[in-house]
Amino acid sequence: MNFQAVKGTRDFYPNEMRLRNWITDAWRRVSLRNGFEEYDSPIFEYLDLYTAKSGDEIVSQLFAFEDRGGRKLAIRPEITPSLARMVNAKINSLPRPIKWFSVPRLCRAENPQKGRLREFFQWNVDIIGPADTLADAECIFTCVDFLREIGLSPSDVQVRIGSRPLAVIALRAAGVAQEIVPAALAVLDKRPKVSREEFDALAGKAGLTPEQTQAVCRFQDAADLQQVAQVLAGQEGIEGPIEDLRKLFANLTAMGAADYCTLDLRIVRGLAYYTGAVYEVFDAAGSMRAIAGGGRYDNLLKVLGGPEVAATGFGMGDVVLGILLEEKGKIPAQLQAARLDYFVIDAEDSLPAKLQVVAALRGKGLTADFSYRYQAVGKQFKTANQRGAKKVVIIQAGGQSVAVKDLATGQQVEMPLEKFLQES
Amino acid sequence: MNFQAVKGTRDFYPNEMRLRNWITDAWRRVSLRNGFEEYDSPIFEYLDLYTAKSGDEIVSQLFAFEDRGGRKLAIRPEITPSLARMVNAKINSLPRPIKWFSVPRLCRAENPQKGRLREFFQWNVDIIGPADTLADAECIFTCVDFLREIGLSPSDVQVRIGSRPLAVIALRAAGVAQEIVPAALAVLDKRPKVSREEFDALAGKAGLTPEQTQAVCRFQDAADLQQVAQVLAGQEGIEGPIEDLRKLFANLTAMGAADYCTLDLRIVRGLAYYTGAVYEVFDAAGSMRAIAGGGRYDNLLKVLGGPEVAATGFGMGDVVLGILLEEKGKIPAQLQAARLDYFVIDAEDSLPAKLQVVAALRGKGLTADFSYRYQAVGKQFKTANQRGAKKVVIIQAGGQSVAVKDLATGQQVEMPLEKFLQES
Repeated sequence: MNFQAVKGTRDFYPNEMRLRNWITDAWRRVSLRNGFEEYDSPIFEYLDLYTAKSGDEIVSQLFAFEDRGGRKLAIRPEITPSLARMVNAKINSLPRPIKWFSVPRLCRAENPQKGRLREFFQWNVDIIGPADTLADAECIFTCVDFLREIGLSPSDVQVRIGSRPLAVIALRAAGVAQEIVPAALAVLDKRPKVSREEFDALAGKAGLTPEQTQAVCRFQDAADLQQVAQVLAGQEGIEGPIEDLRKLFANLTAMGAADYCTLDLRIVRGLAYYTGAVYEVFDAAGSMRAIAGGGRYDNLLKVLGGPEVAATGFGMGDVVLGILLEEKGKIPAQLQAARLDYFVIDAEDSLPAKLQVVAALRGKGLTADFSYRYQAVGKQFKTANQRGAKKVVIIQAGGQSVAVKDLATGQQVEMPLEKFLQES
Repeated sequence: MNFQAVKGTRDFYPNEMRLRNWITDAWRRVSLRNGFEEYDSPIFEYLDLYTAKSGDEIVSQLFAFEDRGGRKLAIRPEITPSLARMVNAKINSLPRPIKWFSVPRLCRAENPQKGRLREFFQWNVDIIGPADTLADAECIFTCVDFLREIGLSPSDVQVRIGSRPLAVIALRAAGVAQEIVPAALAVLDKRPKVSREEFDALAGKAGLTPEQTQAVCRFQDAADLQQVAQVLAGQEGIEGPIEDLRKLFANLTAMGAADYCTLDLRIVRGLAYYTGAVYEVFDAAGSMRAIAGGGRYDNLLKVLGGPEVAATGFGMGDVVLGILLEEKGKIPAQLQAARLDYFVIDAEDSLPAKLQVVAALRGKGLTADFSYRYQAVGKQFKTANQRGAKKVVIIQAGGQSVAVKDLATGQQVEMPLEKFLQES
């Protein structure tokens, strides 16, 4: 019998749970103030939903099973397919723009390693409806708003922004055949993560000649939009995507988020369905996996049986983020322990009065606790301190009166029980 | 291709999500003020964990699958086995009493019907360590504290409290053989849910004679503890459990929760592992399934490979509760829509100033939104009203000044942009 947590999953004891809640509460708070509404999907879906979006190779990367009726189901490895399904089902009745966020629990059947677990939480922020790059700016601003909220500065993290359509044009301009483009994009996506030699080998394997690889790298290494225009000069269709990036940065500047954002055309994202600006958030040292990633995906709803509707959004996992926050020392010390407003002590054994006070405090919304067994007052004070209580109430005279002690200042006042219950 | 939610699961669109959050936020708030700390387990465990607790028959009631290494896993159908596993793993380092709560997402492979889904959320509240019935009182008080918080009165719901040891003594006193007791308890558990005829048939099938069934029903129908003592007079071991119930009701009275609680010896709970007081929460009309259920289970940690440690707790699902709240009209009207603090409008097309104001408001923690496209002011006001905005900010003179309108009172004031940003 195996009574351990499954490898690649986490037990959230109260200390770990407070950290998780600190992150997810900030995700929710920031989403709401940016005008997003929360949604959620079931933890499992019909397997078809994932193969329709990502092809049959996805099956080995997720946890699939059958129900009693033999229907093929799978635990969600991402929430975007569910989002598309839900929006498609009500596409005509949902007011636009659809600004939704979610904090789903997701599972992937991978080999656990640093920053990559088989179960994790992911913040998802999406805007469906507007084709305007302003929606991309809003998603990126919301991401930056969270990074700032949680204490990460522009010198800690950067949103690196590229362009899927420009990457495709650069590949085609280099003479890469249309049918090789998806594989070539997947290779380009790996470029920042592997050595020069490994990258060249991967590019060759995907069918790119060394000259083609070199040409595309020249595009990817462009430092600004002017250089991009020079490298791709004369290619059809570059004006729109370049103008989109220019507007994106202008809007991020107006929103005061530009210091968190860098143009980086090496960012192309691995998945096939992106259609516009794409971005990933990295620690400034660049030593970790991406903290977040996203972009515009105007075709996905249609692929999943709906109409053609513009869409953009990103996902941010809790695992790499947690490692970064830990390394940067950004996790508040007070998360180490729960806090009580009151710990209630009886000077002599007066359980009914103690219970009455505890219940009354809780009924007022205050956090209150007590010892189940009657113990010496000194012992009860020790427990109060261990529990991080702000104040102690000492029941006196069988519940006729109480002494209230502030454990921070040491100040103590005595009063009749009724007065305390009215004033606390 | 099947692009629908799996039967028995729910899509949480923003309206449904606000309702779910209203319930789960209240569960969390009430738990914390009662001195409980939050924990969580992975969504899947090794299948062994569930068969060790509940036997092999549990396998057909849960979603089991294999990982790539061929290990047998299952989505959690309840969190108590995970709780026992987690506590056992750190039994010597966790300070007692262990007062923990969780709001897990759970899945069961059943046929969906009213009040019973294949995916649901469940509030779990447990105290591990104290054998004292005071811990049972605290769990029941916490349950009542929530019922009161959410607007359910003692005439809406009642906690019906029975005793597992007294039920066992009553069965043995009636001459029921020890080896039939578990099956007999499962039948007694069904008594309030089936007709007289069905119950008699079930009892006969479990091996009880009509006389034995009658004798046990006399015990179950006892109106108070005095009658219990009369019916079981002379039986060994009745004093402890009767005194436990007496103390339990006395403590609930001291905590002001007695009006929500009724002695009801027909409550025995179906599962094998209960060892003390057991209870279920029902709507007063008794027309629905139980809203919550729990009790003392002093053997479970040992069954799952740990030491013998006293434990007590309950679970409350969100499905039956949601139906009851809906029927009783207790769901607040404001959950029907999200609210914005501010909707930002531009009187002429002045996007950068609008974005600056929106970003500044959000940076202060205020909920703010705007229209992506420049629209007539009247159209923008209409959107502000649809979005439930409390106030509207109108950008004027290219962002030099703003007019702030309170949509509830109609009052409007104008001021320079800088002044507004300082004061909002």
